[in-house]
Amino acid sequence: MSIETLTSAVRSIPDFPIPGIEFYDITTLFQSASHLKELSDILYDRYKDKGITKVVGIESRGFFMGPATAIRLGVGFVPIRKPGKLPYKVIEETYTKEYGEDTIQIHQDALTNEDVVLLHDDLLATGGTMVAAYNLVKKLGVKKIYINFLIELEELKGIDHFPKDVEVNSVIKF
Amino acid sequence: MSIETLTSAVRSIPDFPIPGIEFYDITTLFQSASHLKELSDILYDRYKDKGITKVVGIESRGFFMGPATAIRLGVGFVPIRKPGKLPYKVIEETYTKEYGEDTIQIHQDALTNEDVVLLHDDLLATGGTMVAAYNLVKKLGVKKIYINFLIELEELKGIDHFPKDVEVNSVIKF
Repeated sequence: MSIETLTSAVRSIPDFPIPGIEFYDITTLFQSASHLKELSDILYDRYKDKGITKVVGIESRGFFMGPATAIRLGVGFVPIRKPGKLPYKVIEETYTKEYGEDTIQIHQDALTNEDVVLLHDDLLATGGTMVAAYNLVKKLGVKKIYINFLIELEELKGIDHFPKDVEVNSVIKF
Repeated sequence: MSIETLTSAVRSIPDFPIPGIEFYDITTLFQSASHLKELSDILYDRYKDKGITKVVGIESRGFFMGPATAIRLGVGFVPIRKPGKLPYKVIEETYTKEYGEDTIQIHQDALTNEDVVLLHDDLLATGGTMVAAYNLVKKLGVKKIYINFLIELEELKGIDHFPKDVEVNSVIKF
């Protein structure tokens, strides 16, 4: 199966969640057994030789492929969540969005300085959430961070917001 | 690895999210590669011969093992989400919680009358959300529904709220 076939399985929804925005709906890709398998294979092949020790996924669509990829790679999974969701001691990062601020948290004992992290989310738009997640994971002193998205909206140039020495990948580009 | 070993990987947090409640934190289980693999193996072994055609997971901790189990079983994954999250045409179910009401939605074209569904969430407490999810999936006319939880709080007897002819399983019981 080609990337083009995978791309064609994403459903485009005009004017969602607000007029003028085109929303890329990945549920149509996930409900297809063959497309979901291909997606899993691509992520596994891409990261199997990187020495990844933990996959970190961002709430909530980063949870779709986060644990699944961790299982394929034979490593553990760690969630980054919105405030009030993680029950143990957390560290957090606050960042500016188009309208106001947002905060994300991670358990402070979830990662160590021995970890090589694959940081995963579904969509790279302007990159605000993932940059905050990157800063959050760095605070825990990990050895190395790789970043992966299922979809990248190239014209928004979100990729420019990451340090040049960090490998940032996406599977499907629009 | 035994179920007891898996159970001991769940972290108990007193007084979260409110005083008097003991919270079972599955993040400690997920961050361990060996425990996560065992969990994946248990779910795969339990459902591999049931003719499952779709795994349906409930937002957001049902997303942890939903897609991962779908990939192991070689089938597609469908999310049940909170209102305003699914971009295409939805059907919904409203149910009563301890304080007020809640609503969950599913895409109306996500399942057909040929589907055998594994409906998955992380925790069976009183069962309100899963009963609503069961009713929601039934509305789409599927052939059969299996229900699975990672954790069941047995003394709350949530299992009594499901029809007697539905197979309801959990991995870890407290």
